[in-house]
Amino acid sequence: MRTNETYQRLAENFEQQPFLKHIGATLEHVEYGKAVLSIEKRPELLQQHGFLHAGVTTTLADVACGIAALSAMPEGSGVLSTEFKINLMRPATTNKIIATAELLKPGKTLYIVEATVTDVKGKIIAKMLATMIPTPSENSK
Amino acid sequence: MRTNETYQRLAENFEQQPFLKHIGATLEHVEYGKAVLSIEKRPELLQQHGFLHAGVTTTLADVACGIAALSAMPEGSGVLSTEFKINLMRPATTNKIIATAELLKPGKTLYIVEATVTDVKGKIIAKMLATMIPTPSENSK
Amino acid sequence: MRTNETYQRLAENFEQQPFLKHIGATLEHVEYGKAVLSIEKRPELLQQHGFLHAGVTTTLADVACGIAALSAMPEGSGVLSTEFKINLMRPATTNKIIATAELLKPGKTLYIVEATVTDVKGKIIAKMLATMIPTPSENSK
Amino acid sequence: MRTNETYQRLAENFEQQPFLKHIGATLEHVEYGKAVLSIEKRPELLQQHGFLHAGVTTTLADVACGIAALSAMPEGSGVLSTEFKINLMRPATTNKIIATAELLKPGKTLYIVEATVTDVKGKIIAKMLATMIPTPSENSK
Repeated sequence: MRTNETYQRLAENFEQQPFLKHIGATLEHVEYGKAVLSIEKRPELLQQHGFLHAGVTTTLADVACGIAALSAMPEGSGVLSTEFKINLMRPATTNKIIATAELLKPGKTLYIVEATVTDVKGKIIAKMLATMIPTPSENSK
Repeated sequence: MRTNETYQRLAENFEQQPFLKHIGATLEHVEYGKAVLSIEKRPELLQQHGFLHAGVTTTLADVACGIAALSAMPEGSGVLSTEFKINLMRPATTNKIIATAELLKPGKTLYIVEATVTDVKGKIIAKMLATMIPTPSENSK
Repeated sequence: MRTNETYQRLAENFEQQPFLKHIGATLEHVEYGKAVLSIEKRPELLQQHGFLHAGVTTTLADVACGIAALSAMPEGSGVLSTEFKINLMRPATTNKIIATAELLKPGKTLYIVEATVTDVKGKIIAKMLATMIPTPSENSK
Repeated sequence: MRTNETYQRLAENFEQQPFLKHIGATLEHVEYGKAVLSIEKRPELLQQHGFLHAGVTTTLADVACGIAALSAMPEGSGVLSTEFKINLMRPATTNKIIATAELLKPGKTLYIVEATVTDVKGKIIAKMLATMIPTPSENSK
């Protein structure tokens, strides 16, 4: 059974990533094999047409996948993205986007995760398929 | 023939992306079918282990692919990433990383581009394979 | 509204692919935005460890994505795979595998589709994320 | 140092895959970190427009990646594809296609490989980016 301490660890992983603070991502929800993140449109996150930059959407989906994988890894693990692919389907027309990641398969060395990014109305913006790997955590002693 | 005005247009595309200023990316070089970008390690760009965040590496590679594609598109086009895949091979151990994108195939609707991200010693950090599409530019009049 | 003639067209598309006969794939089901294909293990479809070859699993998923996309394309269109990514999660331990493709987003030029490949017990074997494009059909007159 | 026995092992790996015989693939060349395969157009390998099926092109590239990775793995290893992404850029208009795979990074658990598929005139048809993993070989004792 996963304890609240586990979920505390996931929130800590999130908070220990300065880049997530830099872009203003929010961890909305975590449970075993699942993570939900969101981000709000801000001027510094845009690309040349006034939409959220693909790099922002991708970072949000990637981190959601990482935390969903980490939630199923042994205590004390860290997590690294080894590869992912994303299809960017349409620009977000709402002020906030939401990335929901779900673990497809945990493993000894590879965790396969998918994430769907939607706007606040539930319209799909992007889909990611990713592989995460566990690493010995620098945070564990 | 491509003129200097064309390359000026590519630099403008780069400068019109606020997110690139937010992360501190630099456009090092552009020519027909090729773009080179770099970014330096800064505290706000890191993940939980002190390395550049995957989202930063990915953004740099994605934008390099976009500009490489744009360099071969008709005058007045804009460019959008429709999909990409990246393999993140190792963390950068130097203070700067460099993304070099090369157009594999221009097309009427699809531009296939690859990018290699290395550290300053030339060691490979990541490889991307991407599809870019032209859009009527909002910047053209 | 899609008519039975439309679904007849999808079955014809399937039957017009000699490679699918060569590997023995079966079209199980089609509806708007969805296609289900299956294949049974046969000696000539195996790799060196006695499992279905990755190329077989991938072909099944790719064709399922193509037919799911085609089901939503204008009458007379053909379909081509422009790119896909697949995560192969585990070998099939049952004699038959099933690929179920669902259209995530139809578009003017790009159709984004995902496919899940399972064994007959529903255990996930592979997941694909693909981009399909419509082409003027050689079959239409 | 790699011996001829190593390369013999790679050829054996190739020959032990019945599906490769079924589609008529040929192993043209292997060296450390590199593999070249080819296949000739035959009626049973085609799709609905008379071109080589995407599944054939993909299988060829995937197997080339696997053998390129295997060439750098410890003696006695087997190899499995864990994921790959392919961009299919144009149909082959020559009777033979060639897949050349090169290892981008060997690792303890992950081998990152890329493959370029061309026609006999060197025109690019497809590009793959793949992750291969070593497995204890069933062939080793």
